[in-house]
Amino acid sequence: MTTEARLLHGTADDRLGEIADRLEGFLAADPDLSFQAAAFHDGAPVLDVWGGPHLAEDSVMVPFSVTKNTIGLSVGLLVERGELDLDALVVDCWPEFGAHGKDRVTVRQLLSHQAGLPQATPALTVAELLDDHAAAERLAATTPFWYPGTAFGYHGITIGNLASELVFRVTGRTLHEFYEQEIRAPHGIDFYLGLPADQDARKARTLPMIKPVADTSTMYASLLAPLAFGMPGPQVDLANDEVSWRFGHPAVSGTGTARGLARLFAAAVTGVDGAAPFLSAETVLTIGQQQVRGYDEVLGQPHRSHSIVFQKPTPTLAFGGPRAFGHDGAMGALACVDPDTGIAFAWTIARGPWPGGADPRALTLASDLGTILSR
Amino acid sequence: MTTEARLLHGTADDRLGEIADRLEGFLAADPDLSFQAAAFHDGAPVLDVWGGPHLAEDSVMVPFSVTKNTIGLSVGLLVERGELDLDALVVDCWPEFGAHGKDRVTVRQLLSHQAGLPQATPALTVAELLDDHAAAERLAATTPFWYPGTAFGYHGITIGNLASELVFRVTGRTLHEFYEQEIRAPHGIDFYLGLPADQDARKARTLPMIKPVADTSTMYASLLAPLAFGMPGPQVDLANDEVSWRFGHPAVSGTGTARGLARLFAAAVTGVDGAAPFLSAETVLTIGQQQVRGYDEVLGQPHRSHSIVFQKPTPTLAFGGPRAFGHDGAMGALACVDPDTGIAFAWTIARGPWPGGADPRALTLASDLGTILSR
Amino acid sequence: MTTEARLLHGTADDRLGEIADRLEGFLAADPDLSFQAAAFHDGAPVLDVWGGPHLAEDSVMVPFSVTKNTIGLSVGLLVERGELDLDALVVDCWPEFGAHGKDRVTVRQLLSHQAGLPQATPALTVAELLDDHAAAERLAATTPFWYPGTAFGYHGITIGNLASELVFRVTGRTLHEFYEQEIRAPHGIDFYLGLPADQDARKARTLPMIKPVADTSTMYASLLAPLAFGMPGPQVDLANDEVSWRFGHPAVSGTGTARGLARLFAAAVTGVDGAAPFLSAETVLTIGQQQVRGYDEVLGQPHRSHSIVFQKPTPTLAFGGPRAFGHDGAMGALACVDPDTGIAFAWTIARGPWPGGADPRALTLASDLGTILSR
Repeated sequence: MTTEARLLHGTADDRLGEIADRLEGFLAADPDLSFQAAAFHDGAPVLDVWGGPHLAEDSVMVPFSVTKNTIGLSVGLLVERGELDLDALVVDCWPEFGAHGKDRVTVRQLLSHQAGLPQATPALTVAELLDDHAAAERLAATTPFWYPGTAFGYHGITIGNLASELVFRVTGRTLHEFYEQEIRAPHGIDFYLGLPADQDARKARTLPMIKPVADTSTMYASLLAPLAFGMPGPQVDLANDEVSWRFGHPAVSGTGTARGLARLFAAAVTGVDGAAPFLSAETVLTIGQQQVRGYDEVLGQPHRSHSIVFQKPTPTLAFGGPRAFGHDGAMGALACVDPDTGIAFAWTIARGPWPGGADPRALTLASDLGTILSR
Repeated sequence: MTTEARLLHGTADDRLGEIADRLEGFLAADPDLSFQAAAFHDGAPVLDVWGGPHLAEDSVMVPFSVTKNTIGLSVGLLVERGELDLDALVVDCWPEFGAHGKDRVTVRQLLSHQAGLPQATPALTVAELLDDHAAAERLAATTPFWYPGTAFGYHGITIGNLASELVFRVTGRTLHEFYEQEIRAPHGIDFYLGLPADQDARKARTLPMIKPVADTSTMYASLLAPLAFGMPGPQVDLANDEVSWRFGHPAVSGTGTARGLARLFAAAVTGVDGAAPFLSAETVLTIGQQQVRGYDEVLGQPHRSHSIVFQKPTPTLAFGGPRAFGHDGAMGALACVDPDTGIAFAWTIARGPWPGGADPRALTLASDLGTILSR
Repeated sequence: MTTEARLLHGTADDRLGEIADRLEGFLAADPDLSFQAAAFHDGAPVLDVWGGPHLAEDSVMVPFSVTKNTIGLSVGLLVERGELDLDALVVDCWPEFGAHGKDRVTVRQLLSHQAGLPQATPALTVAELLDDHAAAERLAATTPFWYPGTAFGYHGITIGNLASELVFRVTGRTLHEFYEQEIRAPHGIDFYLGLPADQDARKARTLPMIKPVADTSTMYASLLAPLAFGMPGPQVDLANDEVSWRFGHPAVSGTGTARGLARLFAAAVTGVDGAAPFLSAETVLTIGQQQVRGYDEVLGQPHRSHSIVFQKPTPTLAFGGPRAFGHDGAMGALACVDPDTGIAFAWTIARGPWPGGADPRALTLASDLGTILSR
């Protein structure tokens, strides 16, 4: 059906009337709210809607760490093709990485936040992070903040540099190039690592969250968090400054639509347009399998969980069932897939609700779509 | 002494007058309460009592997961005899198990809930679970729900099928057969994996717990729990339906008395009737050694602990000291042993107290017996 | 500057006026309070103060587990010299240790409380603990309380005996001898493992903490704690009885001043008196790298963390940044170093505040010194 609502635009499957009504209600209740929501079910589009003053149908924005889904799916494609062995040592393809006690770190550990490198010593500059190799070289020369394999902590930014270098060592291409050539272009995905200049007119800003007056919460109880997320020297607005999104950091500053992100997961897991998925069911289970769960050394939170790069659902991040995976972003966005229900879902939002992380409305939507459409 | 109490029947050691009085008090306070309690100290019976309308001296019932003690002790006997190496790979004796990334799972990990197989994909039917090999074959073909060895979660039902297949591959006998021939029959244990027809007259029902009117608790905060404990297709009352206890699932539906369960542990650890224990002190420490502790991926509880199959005592499951081990059941029963005090203890109960797991009265009894008798 | 305060004695760097005022305030508020505080910054003394009725400038006392810093730094020196490989198996140099399933324990695991030996079976006597080899032999013959490498728990006393034997097997010298000959004497450290008789006149008592009348707290929620810290037979006051401090147990009963402890860390990490540090920057990162974090099996506390022997700072033990390390003591003392700020700090106290562990005032001082002096 085409949504007949006044504020919500786009189309929704006939079975999703309650969902469309709910979204219309969100827009009616908050005139500033601006989002895109998109979903596929078993490869068919079932939801493609948007609303609010800050985002149009084709607006592209930076959903922060939702970008990390491009890393996980690129890795999946390399695993699928037999080019990357998760149980190999990183030094097998990247010898310099072995310095300072990292010679036994596996690819699996590196890609599930276990290598102890949420920051380099000394801390990385923005210029180094927004570079194909500079940050990776510095991280290779750093002693891990914990003995690799004994703990994990969110490599919020550095996982992009580490994964890109890993892909480069295996394929001769950066992660940007590999994703663009092997995934984005062939499957028509409206989500870029490095927005091309001819798309600039569509770029929308990510707006700052509004902190409640009475809120006195401390986000993180961790000694590593300030270090991991602090960058010395000139600062950059990763979502809005061109230097960031033109580069397209694979961990935090890809650019695109919710439609593009949902299609990305559908193309990988269920296939779209009648084509086979670009990952086999075996690979989907492999990259979606929980690798770590518990206390995050960087975020200082007690119940985090990751598969290969991706987040896993938990009782407080309940976007799907035990086989689901995906990633949220610092400012409210979310993209995820549940192979057991065939739902690929994405949510972008111009100004996410405080205190950030996946918008709770998006988590509920992802979960409800699975319930409704698998009835 | 013979208990002279009006409601409590049986015999108790002279040093256990306070214990007998306490049990009499429980019966006086709750006319529905029906239990059997039995204990051995250094191989000698010191407690053998029962009371209440639903259980007689020789009543046999299904104590749910207390049954798992038969797995742990059978494994112990195979370790004792050198037939099973806990540090071997499962695939060494069961090659099919290696599918989907399980080729490096050790016997030790499989038997301490670390293999990531609390359920098969798709979920197992009752018919498959109550079969010597069907569920095991399906589990061998399943991708683990977490990377094996990095987490643990209660394999509440499947550990029975997995362990039985493992024993079959090693000995050519199912766990049922091995336990019956090597442990139950030779040591005169009144606890069966598969109740023989000539014992049917003794079979008592396990009665449903009564949920408090005001209770709104959710038992489990876990995405895996509904999947792990859900069975598609026709449902079965595991404790009361003949299809279950006639088969005698080694994880959940053995049948017997508290006297039998206490004797089982005494025969294993201290010896009974003047005989040597069937496990050496070394093996007792081996199978009782903590293998995992912390968050249970299936139960969603933060402080669970297991040795080889068995539960270990914790501050909230305090049935003994650091070397003790045993297993409780969903409906209140408990059986355990503490090699440091020489106490083997068992408790069966017709209708356990809400919300289930080991009856707190039984935990206190087990602990107090050690204190009193080792004075 | 020389402190001009009436109650506080000693000297403080000109930039530490606020610190001196704060310490003076502590003494003014509590006439019984008696402490020594000392710090070095980049190898130069910046704080050397004392006050209160129970400790003079040169008083030496037993700071309990602060003594463990001597183990960590001795191990560091052996690693530095290539005599000890943290990733080697313990049995490579100590074959008897391999009994009862310990043959795959690494030096790294043994020295980070992962070996499962917080106590021997049967429990060690004081006489065995205060002996160069007796306790170590008994521990080598003990089955670990958990499968080594899967958990950790504070080896509060036994880590001294285990580390000493390890050093003996590698060097032919006990840890006492190695520390005395290679660290204490050459660097002029006023902290002894075994106080020489000619220093006895300086010995001050460690006074019992005063428990608040209303306090009903239980220190530990752990089944292992009573066993780990209980010693059968005649008891000894480890801090005050000569049998203890004359031996100088490397885990709990070294003797010295705060000045000595601060100098110990400065000599190791930044160098003192214009000399190079006795550990390289690489070794400092190696011995300070987090090895374990989470639930401590012995203390029953959920957020403990250790590097090689040392404690790591945590949000509730915040004595420094992510690269800092050190150790507190049961009765309030603390010594630590932060290689990122160049601060080496120590605090001794005659009667620590209830309930023990690092005096919160000392934690704040250690942290503030880094902030003030790195401005």
